[in-house]
Amino acid sequence: MTIIRVSLLANDTLRQGGVELIDAWRADSDDKLWVDIREPEQQVIEPLLEERFGFHELAAEDTLSPNTLPKYDSFPTYDFFIFRTVDVNVSEHVSETEKIAAFVGRNFLFTVHRKPSMAADDIWNRCPADRRILARGPDFLLYSIVDQMVDAYFPMLEQIEECVDDLQDRIFESAEDMHLDELLHLKRDVNVLRRHSLPQRELLNQISRGDAKFIQAQHLIYFRDVYDHMFRISETIDVDRDQMTSTMEAYLSVVANRTNDIMKVLTIFSAIMLPLTLVAGIYGMNFEYMPELKWTWGYPLAVATMVVIDAYLYVRFKKSRWL
Amino acid sequence: MTIIRVSLLANDTLRQGGVELIDAWRADSDDKLWVDIREPEQQVIEPLLEERFGFHELAAEDTLSPNTLPKYDSFPTYDFFIFRTVDVNVSEHVSETEKIAAFVGRNFLFTVHRKPSMAADDIWNRCPADRRILARGPDFLLYSIVDQMVDAYFPMLEQIEECVDDLQDRIFESAEDMHLDELLHLKRDVNVLRRHSLPQRELLNQISRGDAKFIQAQHLIYFRDVYDHMFRISETIDVDRDQMTSTMEAYLSVVANRTNDIMKVLTIFSAIMLPLTLVAGIYGMNFEYMPELKWTWGYPLAVATMVVIDAYLYVRFKKSRWL
Amino acid sequence: MTIIRVSLLANDTLRQGGVELIDAWRADSDDKLWVDIREPEQQVIEPLLEERFGFHELAAEDTLSPNTLPKYDSFPTYDFFIFRTVDVNVSEHVSETEKIAAFVGRNFLFTVHRKPSMAADDIWNRCPADRRILARGPDFLLYSIVDQMVDAYFPMLEQIEECVDDLQDRIFESAEDMHLDELLHLKRDVNVLRRHSLPQRELLNQISRGDAKFIQAQHLIYFRDVYDHMFRISETIDVDRDQMTSTMEAYLSVVANRTNDIMKVLTIFSAIMLPLTLVAGIYGMNFEYMPELKWTWGYPLAVATMVVIDAYLYVRFKKSRWL
Amino acid sequence: MTIIRVSLLANDTLRQGGVELIDAWRADSDDKLWVDIREPEQQVIEPLLEERFGFHELAAEDTLSPNTLPKYDSFPTYDFFIFRTVDVNVSEHVSETEKIAAFVGRNFLFTVHRKPSMAADDIWNRCPADRRILARGPDFLLYSIVDQMVDAYFPMLEQIEECVDDLQDRIFESAEDMHLDELLHLKRDVNVLRRHSLPQRELLNQISRGDAKFIQAQHLIYFRDVYDHMFRISETIDVDRDQMTSTMEAYLSVVANRTNDIMKVLTIFSAIMLPLTLVAGIYGMNFEYMPELKWTWGYPLAVATMVVIDAYLYVRFKKSRWL
Amino acid sequence: MTIIRVSLLANDTLRQGGVELIDAWRADSDDKLWVDIREPEQQVIEPLLEERFGFHELAAEDTLSPNTLPKYDSFPTYDFFIFRTVDVNVSEHVSETEKIAAFVGRNFLFTVHRKPSMAADDIWNRCPADRRILARGPDFLLYSIVDQMVDAYFPMLEQIEECVDDLQDRIFESAEDMHLDELLHLKRDVNVLRRHSLPQRELLNQISRGDAKFIQAQHLIYFRDVYDHMFRISETIDVDRDQMTSTMEAYLSVVANRTNDIMKVLTIFSAIMLPLTLVAGIYGMNFEYMPELKWTWGYPLAVATMVVIDAYLYVRFKKSRWL
Repeated sequence: MTIIRVSLLANDTLRQGGVELIDAWRADSDDKLWVDIREPEQQVIEPLLEERFGFHELAAEDTLSPNTLPKYDSFPTYDFFIFRTVDVNVSEHVSETEKIAAFVGRNFLFTVHRKPSMAADDIWNRCPADRRILARGPDFLLYSIVDQMVDAYFPMLEQIEECVDDLQDRIFESAEDMHLDELLHLKRDVNVLRRHSLPQRELLNQISRGDAKFIQAQHLIYFRDVYDHMFRISETIDVDRDQMTSTMEAYLSVVANRTNDIMKVLTIFSAIMLPLTLVAGIYGMNFEYMPELKWTWGYPLAVATMVVIDAYLYVRFKKSRWL
Repeated sequence: MTIIRVSLLANDTLRQGGVELIDAWRADSDDKLWVDIREPEQQVIEPLLEERFGFHELAAEDTLSPNTLPKYDSFPTYDFFIFRTVDVNVSEHVSETEKIAAFVGRNFLFTVHRKPSMAADDIWNRCPADRRILARGPDFLLYSIVDQMVDAYFPMLEQIEECVDDLQDRIFESAEDMHLDELLHLKRDVNVLRRHSLPQRELLNQISRGDAKFIQAQHLIYFRDVYDHMFRISETIDVDRDQMTSTMEAYLSVVANRTNDIMKVLTIFSAIMLPLTLVAGIYGMNFEYMPELKWTWGYPLAVATMVVIDAYLYVRFKKSRWL
Repeated sequence: MTIIRVSLLANDTLRQGGVELIDAWRADSDDKLWVDIREPEQQVIEPLLEERFGFHELAAEDTLSPNTLPKYDSFPTYDFFIFRTVDVNVSEHVSETEKIAAFVGRNFLFTVHRKPSMAADDIWNRCPADRRILARGPDFLLYSIVDQMVDAYFPMLEQIEECVDDLQDRIFESAEDMHLDELLHLKRDVNVLRRHSLPQRELLNQISRGDAKFIQAQHLIYFRDVYDHMFRISETIDVDRDQMTSTMEAYLSVVANRTNDIMKVLTIFSAIMLPLTLVAGIYGMNFEYMPELKWTWGYPLAVATMVVIDAYLYVRFKKSRWL
Repeated sequence: MTIIRVSLLANDTLRQGGVELIDAWRADSDDKLWVDIREPEQQVIEPLLEERFGFHELAAEDTLSPNTLPKYDSFPTYDFFIFRTVDVNVSEHVSETEKIAAFVGRNFLFTVHRKPSMAADDIWNRCPADRRILARGPDFLLYSIVDQMVDAYFPMLEQIEECVDDLQDRIFESAEDMHLDELLHLKRDVNVLRRHSLPQRELLNQISRGDAKFIQAQHLIYFRDVYDHMFRISETIDVDRDQMTSTMEAYLSVVANRTNDIMKVLTIFSAIMLPLTLVAGIYGMNFEYMPELKWTWGYPLAVATMVVIDAYLYVRFKKSRWL
Repeated sequence: MTIIRVSLLANDTLRQGGVELIDAWRADSDDKLWVDIREPEQQVIEPLLEERFGFHELAAEDTLSPNTLPKYDSFPTYDFFIFRTVDVNVSEHVSETEKIAAFVGRNFLFTVHRKPSMAADDIWNRCPADRRILARGPDFLLYSIVDQMVDAYFPMLEQIEECVDDLQDRIFESAEDMHLDELLHLKRDVNVLRRHSLPQRELLNQISRGDAKFIQAQHLIYFRDVYDHMFRISETIDVDRDQMTSTMEAYLSVVANRTNDIMKVLTIFSAIMLPLTLVAGIYGMNFEYMPELKWTWGYPLAVATMVVIDAYLYVRFKKSRWL
């Protein structure tokens, strides 16, 4: 069910409440309005956003669709943004991304997200204590939310980095299919993440260059700061991808190397056993006239021959560094 | 055989019919004309498009050729576009792309396609119910068709994704040549798709920037929306390609790992059997003077020796984690 | 030996002949002149092009050198172009590229090529029948030649594609070194082709944007069409390259898989034979006191033991899917 | 604990000391001030930089964060830069990067770094001897520091190059997992380095183009020179990365080749021993009627047969180049 | 020791000599001066270039440093260039690059190089015969030298191409570690070459666009020609790199294929010998009651069994294409 909560800063007084607070706000005033919508449903979105506030139907639709990439659309009386957030899931190596849509006008901000957003909650809670957040304008409010969202990437990237390092260590210890499977899934996660983070970076670059009408010039530097963070994030993602590719290549080499070692053991065993078995076989033949069989020292001599053969092979293998 | 159907919106009345309806339309009126041509043949295209409507010979030729890439050409009285559609073929992992050519003027739209187009059919059927589609102008009509065409990519991409996931799972279960063959074919399909989708994305970007004369400014946002979809599509294609490359690399590792395991079994078997065979061979020798052969406990001792040797080897293999 | 042939369209009359026709043409008239030079030699090029027509020494030199890449140079009274053609050699999987140099002025076209050019010959032969080719100006004449040249790429690309498909099929059938060798050579051919086609594409893009002074505006659309073809060609080349790289990677996997299968056979053979050989060896020992040897059922029991061991191993291998 | 040291050039007199010297400087004079801050702490940074000098809060924060990438922010009365330095650690193949933040105004320079900076120390010590460094302005002072910082990359790159060469040699000598492990770590180091050096190069490019307000035009050539160095550094890093990738691929081939050699030994051993063992086995059979066993020359003949078989195999292997 | 030689064209008279000729030249005349400096030393460079001719200290320093990449710096009275030359070393597959620094003014050219330069020597020797080289201005003189330098790349590239082809052939003949080692070194050489040639290409592009003040407009076409050559060179380098990467991948496949073949031989040998050995072993058992041993036809029957088993295996292997 759609949940709407509203913050209204009027006459230096902050009021927080439900959808009814919107009526207390007038579009031509300097009162600041923040409407935060969770789990948007079409039957709520359409009357509120499209009809009452006159937001474009395509923008309103975008707040409902789950997969939209980060973007910016300019409209005469508001700017429309989509940002992507990250929901970290420590135990299952899974990173889910979610989006947050924002309508920024001269004196209002609408944020729409399908799942609970830690960033929005946090700013909501800080509003009463620090009313400057709203007072500096809806663009600064948006910055505060986006800044928190972007910073949520860092712990997740650290987790991915740890995962890769961990996988790498385990691969060098014991080369098993299972690790490969995990690596492949991790790689897909990182690729999906990359796919979201590059347009987000580009979007933040665009904002910080001053392309958005309703972001005030004196706040551009803040978005530039978020852009720098986002840039670092996408750089880290690229390093991680490279490292995963290298790990996969290394895995192949490690496995090949193990096979090599196993082959060595097999070859040494065969080389040491087969000649002795042949000697034993020869003196197991049943010919009537085999003089060696009659000798008193025949048996010890045969065994001695075996020892000499293996000693010779041992020296040969030692020389060629097989042992 | 070329099939021509015509929609004409004149004096707020919609008429749908065959080629004869074109005569009821006048170029200098505000009546909206949509001519949809299927299976175009040169002897029809030339008199209709080139002579009667004065479309450029190269554009008219392009409507006949099957392989043209997405593009935009500007002419004084009309814009010429080529878009690519996708025909999904679930059962055979095959994706065929087709093209749709469009001439957009102030008050007319020509769409030409070689195969039946679901998007064109659908819009055709929706026209009588919702005449706004035609009333908003030929550019909005074009948007409606292109939007449907682009959205047809998504189910196909999902299928490809499923295929890749499926192949990946099967490879980890049993590494067979057959899967590789499939992967290679899938990769080619995706590469061809990519080759079509990148110029299409670029084309939609161009349109949404307002480069096309006969796309009205207030409809640019709609094409921008289609561009966003196309962007997401090409991003997904890139992730899929990456994943396929990784899968192929993983495949190699899996096979190498299997070889490794088989080698282990062989080596362990050889290592366990060969020394025992040697012991048996030694006491199978026919020397006259072999004191052990006379001993009452000779046989049990020989067997015991064998057991001790294998026990020793077992411990060694256990220690080096081979077992 | 240098072969020069001249087409002259004067007063609506077309004359075709040798070098002597040049004298009938005056630079300040509207007569159209086309001079086609084959197998250029320095002693001919210099007096004709540099001294008589005043073409720049570097441009004249470029008509002689075999390896020049596609390019465009602007001079006050003429444009200088180099295009690359392709000579297909079906039987040997070899594609040779050649170049054609062109000087385009207000009312003259010089084409210079080292080998016979099918495109130039064809246009030459069509001139008498359709004098519009010359009448529309030297730039349209150039377009006609370049269009034919570029279209000659397509059959060759199809051949390459067939080759790759063929190699791919053969690799999955039997993995031999020979195929790899062929693939490597094909790859080099494609890389060389790519190296020529990218600058040619760029050159055609430049022309179709209207950068060349002596290409009339109303003919730009024709060069744009050739550019679109060239774009498709270079896209196809890239898909082919990708496919070849994938094929090479697949080859490695196929070989690894075969090794795997061979190993399995060896291991199964060894595992089945070695224990039986051991049993036979044990009862081949010559100990005096081996009670089994005296038993009436000893021999059948020994054979039965062998059968049981192999039955057990058979079940084990069956379970682990080796058989 | 934060360490602050100040150089002040007033009336052609250089004074070096602690934070108290700042009071002797007036913002509207032509006196040159250089404040160098080490191990910045928030409680020191905020009053000094934000309150007293009015630097932007985001810039001040950036001086505290360890991971910021190189960047440039323009403010009305100063330029803010972040550069990355490199701390070489010879013995452990580890390269740590650090950052240095700089505020450059008309007549002051603030440099902030978390660790001791050799470049800052060196310039600090050279100031008393050569007061031109300060006299030429804070931008030239900054250049002097950055130039030293960038030059510190070169010895480190040489070390990495040596490491790679060394690893390469060791891999061709003996293919061990350990080397791979090292290579993987080295690769990550180089990737991280690359991630820092590309933005730094871009930053220096931006400065040398004259984007920064407080870098005087006649000093741009100096930053251009540093840019050229940085360009060379990032080129070298790319060559190193390529070489590491090639090395990893080569490693795989080397290991495969070793396996090949081992397999040859095993195969030759088996091929030479197994037939002889069979001959010995045949004449070890206990049939009553085996005429060869009675022959006087039976035994020598059997041995001769063995020799002949091996001689034949030897010739065969020799011919097929296995020996 | 620094070697300075001077060419002076004054009053249509060419004089060639040592450093003393510089005094005969006046900066405000139209006399053309060419100073060619070899093995520059700081104590010579500084007084001559910095003090006497007022060249910038950074440019003068750059003439001394060995590793500078190609670049262009503009100064009020002269242009400063660095180009890279190539010293081919046929026998050792090594390509060394050197640089040549040039100061170009209205009526003077300084060229500085650390090693003897074939290009400079050649032009020096041609000057007396063809004084047009100097008469056309210092920029044309520079072109003449650079043109020769760039053309020196071609024979070296041909050598590299031959090396790669040669390595490729040898790899398909016999797969040895040694070849890989060579390939790896060759790859590094090519990577280093590429690192130099890309900036050089960019530099020549910049010059031919007319960015350099002291290159006269009518000579741009000549630099454009050199740029085209350089473009072809860098394209060839890229094709070579691709080919080397493919070769390395192919090498791995070839080795894997060999292992495959060896495994086949081993498996066939084992499969043919082991069953026979088992049969021989069975009839070598010492059971008292083995009826076959008493049969007159026992021995021939046993041998016949062996032949039948091998015939059966032979047919099986034949069918599965192993033989």
